[in-house]
Order: sequence, then structure tokens, then C-alpha cells
Amino acid sequence: MDVIRLGLGGFGTVGSGLAKILDMNAGRIERRLGKKVVISKILVRDLTKKRAFDPGPDVVFTDDPDALVNDPSVDIVVELMGGLDTARDLMLKAFAAGKHVVTANKHLLAEHGLELFQAAADNAVGLLFEASCAGGIPIVQTLKESLAGDEIVKLLGIMNGTANYILSEMTTRGMDFSTALADAQDLGYAEADPTFDIEGFDTAHKLCVLIRMAYGVDYPLAELPVQGITSVTPMDIEFAREFGYRIKLLAHVMDVHGRLEAGVHPALVPYTYLLARVGGNYNAVRLEGNAVGPIMLHGQGAGDLPTGSAVLADIMNLVRKISDGCTGPDNTGFHNQPIPRARILPPEESESKYYFRFTVADRTGVMAAITRSMADHNVSIAQAVQKGESGAEGIPLVIITHETSARDADAVLAEIDAMDFSVEPCVKFRIL
Amino acid sequence: MDVIRLGLGGFGTVGSGLAKILDMNAGRIERRLGKKVVISKILVRDLTKKRAFDPGPDVVFTDDPDALVNDPSVDIVVELMGGLDTARDLMLKAFAAGKHVVTANKHLLAEHGLELFQAAADNAVGLLFEASCAGGIPIVQTLKESLAGDEIVKLLGIMNGTANYILSEMTTRGMDFSTALADAQDLGYAEADPTFDIEGFDTAHKLCVLIRMAYGVDYPLAELPVQGITSVTPMDIEFAREFGYRIKLLAHVMDVHGRLEAGVHPALVPYTYLLARVGGNYNAVRLEGNAVGPIMLHGQGAGDLPTGSAVLADIMNLVRKISDGCTGPDNTGFHNQPIPRARILPPEESESKYYFRFTVADRTGVMAAITRSMADHNVSIAQAVQKGESGAEGIPLVIITHETSARDADAVLAEIDAMDFSVEPCVKFRIL
Repeated sequence: MDVIRLGLGGFGTVGSGLAKILDMNAGRIERRLGKKVVISKILVRDLTKKRAFDPGPDVVFTDDPDALVNDPSVDIVVELMGGLDTARDLMLKAFAAGKHVVTANKHLLAEHGLELFQAAADNAVGLLFEASCAGGIPIVQTLKESLAGDEIVKLLGIMNGTANYILSEMTTRGMDFSTALADAQDLGYAEADPTFDIEGFDTAHKLCVLIRMAYGVDYPLAELPVQGITSVTPMDIEFAREFGYRIKLLAHVMDVHGRLEAGVHPALVPYTYLLARVGGNYNAVRLEGNAVGPIMLHGQGAGDLPTGSAVLADIMNLVRKISDGCTGPDNTGFHNQPIPRARILPPEESESKYYFRFTVADRTGVMAAITRSMADHNVSIAQAVQKGESGAEGIPLVIITHETSARDADAVLAEIDAMDFSVEPCVKFRIL
Repeated sequence: MDVIRLGLGGFGTVGSGLAKILDMNAGRIERRLGKKVVISKILVRDLTKKRAFDPGPDVVFTDDPDALVNDPSVDIVVELMGGLDTARDLMLKAFAAGKHVVTANKHLLAEHGLELFQAAADNAVGLLFEASCAGGIPIVQTLKESLAGDEIVKLLGIMNGTANYILSEMTTRGMDFSTALADAQDLGYAEADPTFDIEGFDTAHKLCVLIRMAYGVDYPLAELPVQGITSVTPMDIEFAREFGYRIKLLAHVMDVHGRLEAGVHPALVPYTYLLARVGGNYNAVRLEGNAVGPIMLHGQGAGDLPTGSAVLADIMNLVRKISDGCTGPDNTGFHNQPIPRARILPPEESESKYYFRFTVADRTGVMAAITRSMADHNVSIAQAVQKGESGAEGIPLVIITHETSARDADAVLAEIDAMDFSVEPCVKFRIL
């Protein structure tokens, strides 16, 4: 039986996951493909480091990237190292050596995706990356192939399990942010350095990748508005609940008369939405196509096995293409044409309802000043709540607005932040 | 720009939907493929019939199947006629003429799929059928490609929008079955002859198709246990709600130590499951892979545009394969090998908790007789409710059982049905 040989870059969580699945499901894979898939070589930084999973005696470990990409027996390079420079170098070398690449690296794709697609196309090889977005949830394949004929009206995603886990714990158990974060770290749902997850950057990387798949355009990462969950407090969660919402870290993109509005923000999601019920470290993507209507995909967004499953799906996809005699696969979903820059709706022009939370000194004239500022910037009040429990931390004042522009919302918050009765920075979250 | 020409078999709801999308999204399709996709010829039974949608002046209508399949300019035959014999003949002729086929015909695939896969493979052409299962939800592609490397532990599906709409109306509005059915027919969610939908046959067809995609084996349609929703009453819905469940028409398949247990049944689904919240005529599939874990897909399962979207996705998939130089695409998901018969767990051996509803005369000794019968067949009682509102229709008596075999459950019901105090046939629904 033919054997397909993989050269792995990296052997951490996802690499071990892939190795486990190749072992556990070997029979299934052979039945599906009529071929065996094995790992033949693994590139690591530290040859002496003890590995969590033993990939077996036939696997050669190396610390030399060239030994990986130039090995004629390696059919597919699987980049699972993460990070930017080393991963990018490996991929470019792999393409130049005529090797297909499967990756899980959302950060690299967000920063350097256009260059990588071009290099893959120049060498007529595959570049697949299902595992880069929402783990085992097949969102990349869905956008690229299953919804290929649809115009994507809107996409909303909960795509970071760490952030969703933290918010879920805060919601179901009333924990504050730092306790929930520490809890997540203990359980392995958050890294020692959780910045990318809790600041929304990881979600932003994935959103850039999905925007290319959905629209065939590039929304530069540096221009994407990104707000993380570090300013969400138990009080916000409670207010949101009273108003009928759950707070989620959402990626969104929508087509607004031919321009794309996109961003990553904590958002109040109506409890009636299935999206509001995504718990723990699960992920979900809700999209609307102009033919298919609303579709939701839900599953585990991270972990060795779910992510490994997505990597394996891409590998098997490539094996089938190779067996079917394919040349120069379509990697971008737009037959490998250069990807133009998106027509971007300037983020400050985006319209939304908002949840504002002010924390103010207990003083006359505060409400008058706030409502004056809002009126000055054309921001209408839909609901307002002032609960009088005053402490050293000040009184919380929550306002739900009608639709307003981000520019006007930010202007109000800047004004109120500058006033001497503001005890803490103002907080705003979008409302879905 | 290259043009791909479609020959449609049939021009009803789905055909019109496809034509609308090809028109509406022509720009998107050309950007994706670098080619145009047009309908060139449509096969219909009645050339005089007025059509809901005008596909344009360049389309030729014909009532001769040979004129469709032997037309050298037709690249892909799209079978949207439904039914068995005419559709099967058309497909076999298309394969013999070297043409790829896209279909939405779950009934034909369930009955004759093995023959069709063989014929497609013999002619090295494609046979794709995303639209046959759950409309726009990409479940076929997901099983075939995205979860190719997983062992599928279990699959549960709400795959008939008509039945789900009726049950939803009964649940949210307290309607009885016939009122809800009439309502569905008025809204176009149910056919004039709704048998296939409400008796579970349509769901059974789709389940057969999905079992082949998930497991690469054939579970013969004739052997699949199928129970529809016609015996569900508002009382059952209310009892279920009190116990914390919603009633759904579910397709299920699971791997039980290497044998497949499968069937279509009304089932009580715990309210905490996302599956319980699938409303109206939406569909959802919840699967578990041994690597990816639980995944749920949710969306519209029928309608001209959602189903047309799935047909178009398959067409574009084929166009990409043709452009990429593919020969002999893998249609079965198991590299076109003959599909063996499934190792089947005899349905009577399947284990489940049950909801039993007896309707009995108001007489001494009834409960004793029922509980005696259950004890004789080793069926344990988890909960029992007898509400005394006696009418001419008898008193309802509901029992929730512990895990029991279908054989034992059926034996109890047969015994109680035979007793003279049974005023109406006993009803049983599985509990998830």
C-alpha cells in the first residue's frame, strides 16, 4: 500500500495530537484513502527535550529545517511550530522544495498570508489551514467550498476558547476576571502568558484568515479594531443578564454596501441566540449567506485532538488531490489570484447599540453631565440604570444606547473619562 | 473566460433556486472559479408548463433525456427531478456519457446508491450530493472531508424541516398534530402528500446517505427502523416538557462495539441540549468524532435557496477538480471502493430509556397489570405519572423507563395493547 510521509515542524500539543490520531485511527485513514499516512520526520528546536507522546521508533527527529524540507521522502510538511519567523522560513523553503504545506498558524497567516499564498501558487503546491481557525470546527472548508457560491452577508464568531471559558465561568459562577483566568490556567485552558487570548489578538488573527476565505479580500490585521475582555467585570455580566444578554468575545465581519465592517469586541448577545449559549471553551461561528441563510457551526476550538483532527483532514484532502492527479490546488478559494485589499468601512463609522458603564463619584450633576455629553454627540439613550450601592469604587451607571457610530460612542466616553467625577475608566461593549 | 455548462434534470423548487443563485451571485462565482457557470439545457416532462422562474433566453428546454446527456456542450448533469426510475436512468446515462452528476435525490441514493457509485467510478466521473441531506447544512462534505480522519462515535440529526416545524408548532403553540400539519401545508413547509416527511421516511433516506459517508458501509434502507411523528399528541409534548424534554424527530446512528445501531424515531431530547432548541423548519446535525469531539451544524434544511446553495457548492467543487486536472474523483469518501454491508446491531437489541404512554379505562388493577408486564420483561420504572382527568378517551398513564432493550419495550407495549382496558394504542418514544 502506498505510504504518504509527513514532515512535522514542531511537536508540541498539536503535533502530539496529530500523532495520537494517526495511531488511533490508522485503520480508518487507510480505508478512506487506500494509503497509509505516517510521520517520518519531526523538526524541533531541542533534540534533548522529553516529548509528551512517543511517535514511534521509525520517526527521525532533527533540528535542521533543511533536513526536513529537502528530504525527498517527505510528501507534506506540517507546520505546527507557531510563531512568525521560523515558521515562515520553513514554509517558504517547503514551497520552494515543491512540498505541500498544512498549518495551524493563524498569526503567521494573518501577518504574512498573502506572501505565502503567492509562494504556494508559484510552486503549484497546496497550502491548507483548517486548524488555524476554531480547531475542529470545519469553518475554513465551509467558507471555501460549501458556501463557495454564496455571498456572505455576515459572520459572527466565538473563536477563542480561553476567553469564552473565562467569560463562562464569570457568568455561571460569578467569579471575577482574575480568578477565572487563574482557574483557566490551572486547567490548561489558558497559557502562562494569556495576552493573545484575553486581549482578542488570537481571535483577530483568525478573523483575518476567515475574511480572506469568505470575501477573497485582505483586511490588514493592523487596521482591525480589537478589544479584549480584560475590562469585563461581574457587575457587567450581571447588568447584561438583567437586560437579557450574555457577554461574549465576538469576531464579526459584515458586508455594508460593498464595504467590510469587521472587528473583535466583547459584545452583549441576546440570550435567545444560540450563540449566547456557547459555553466553556467551545467555539462557534454563525454565518449568513445570501442563499443558504443562517448557518451555525459549534464545537471544540482547541486541544490536541480537535486541532489535530483538523490538521489531519487537510492532510487527507491533499492526499486525495494528489491521488486524483490534481496540480496546483486552489488554496485561496479564489483560484489563487492575488488577494486585493478589502474595501473597508472605517471602524469609527460602524453603527451599533452600546452598553456603557460609567463609574462615578456620588455627586450632584453627574447624570446631567453624562446625558448632556450624549446629547451633544447624538447618542440616544434606550435604557439607563443607576444602582446606588456606593463604595470607595464609586457608583456604577449603566446606559444602553440606540444605534450610534463608534466615533460618537468613543467621543462620549472620552469626555466622561476626562471629567473629575469619573472614578474609573468608562467601559463600552457592543450590543448585538 | 471559460464557461461551464449545466444540464438540469427538472426545474421545480430546487432547479429554480439554483437558477436564481447563478443569476444573483454570478460575480461571486466568477471571482471564485475564474470561470462562468451557466445553465444551458433543462429536461422537463411537460414543455408547456409555466415555470416559476425564467432561466433566460439562452436556455434550451427539452423533454428528451438523451438530448440532455448526449449534448457534448453539457459538462455537468444536475439531477433535481426527484423520484426513482427516471432519475436513476438519467444518472446512469449521464455517467455512461462521461458526465459528472450533482444530485439532491436522497431517496434514489438510499435505494440505489451502491449501483450509482459503481457506475460513476467505472466512468471516472463525479457524483456529488450535498443537497440530498439537510439542505444548506454542509454535513456531507463535513463527514467526507473535514472529519475524514475521525471515527464517528455517534450522529444525531434533525433532518426534516416539515416534521420539526410541526413539532415546534405543537410545542410552542399547543396545537394538535393535524392543525399543525395543515398550518405547515398552508405555509409551504409541507407537501400536499406529507407522508415521507411525517412518517420519517425522508429522514431515513438521508440517514442511509450519511451512514455511508461516515462509516463507508451500507445500512440497507429496508432494515432501518423508522417511526414517524403521527402519534405525538399535545399531551406527550406537555408531559415531556414537565420532565425536562422536548420532542424531536431524530435520526441516529452510533457505533456499538463495531456494530451500527441506527434508526429514525421521535425522541425526548433533554432541554439542555442545543438540539432541543432547533426550532421551526431548521435542521441540525450533532456528531461526535473520537478526535474532534462533539460538533453541531445548524441551518435551513430545505427551500429553494438553501438547497440550491448546496447544489451550487457541489458544482463549484467539480469545476475546481476539473480545473485542477483531477481524474476519477473520490465520490464515496472511501476512494470509490465497493461499499460493504454494515455490521448491524439488530434493532431489537438497541438499548434506550423510553417514554411510554398508555391510555386506559378508569378501572381497578390497570396499574398493577402494567407494572406486572414491565417486571416480567425486565423493564424498570424510573418515573410514573397518572393524571386523573378521565374522559371518553380514557386516562393517560405515562411511564419513564430505565435503559431497556427495544425488544422488551415492544413486548410490554404489545401485551398492554392486547388488554381490554387499553382504550388507545400504546405509544413509545425513545429518550435521549
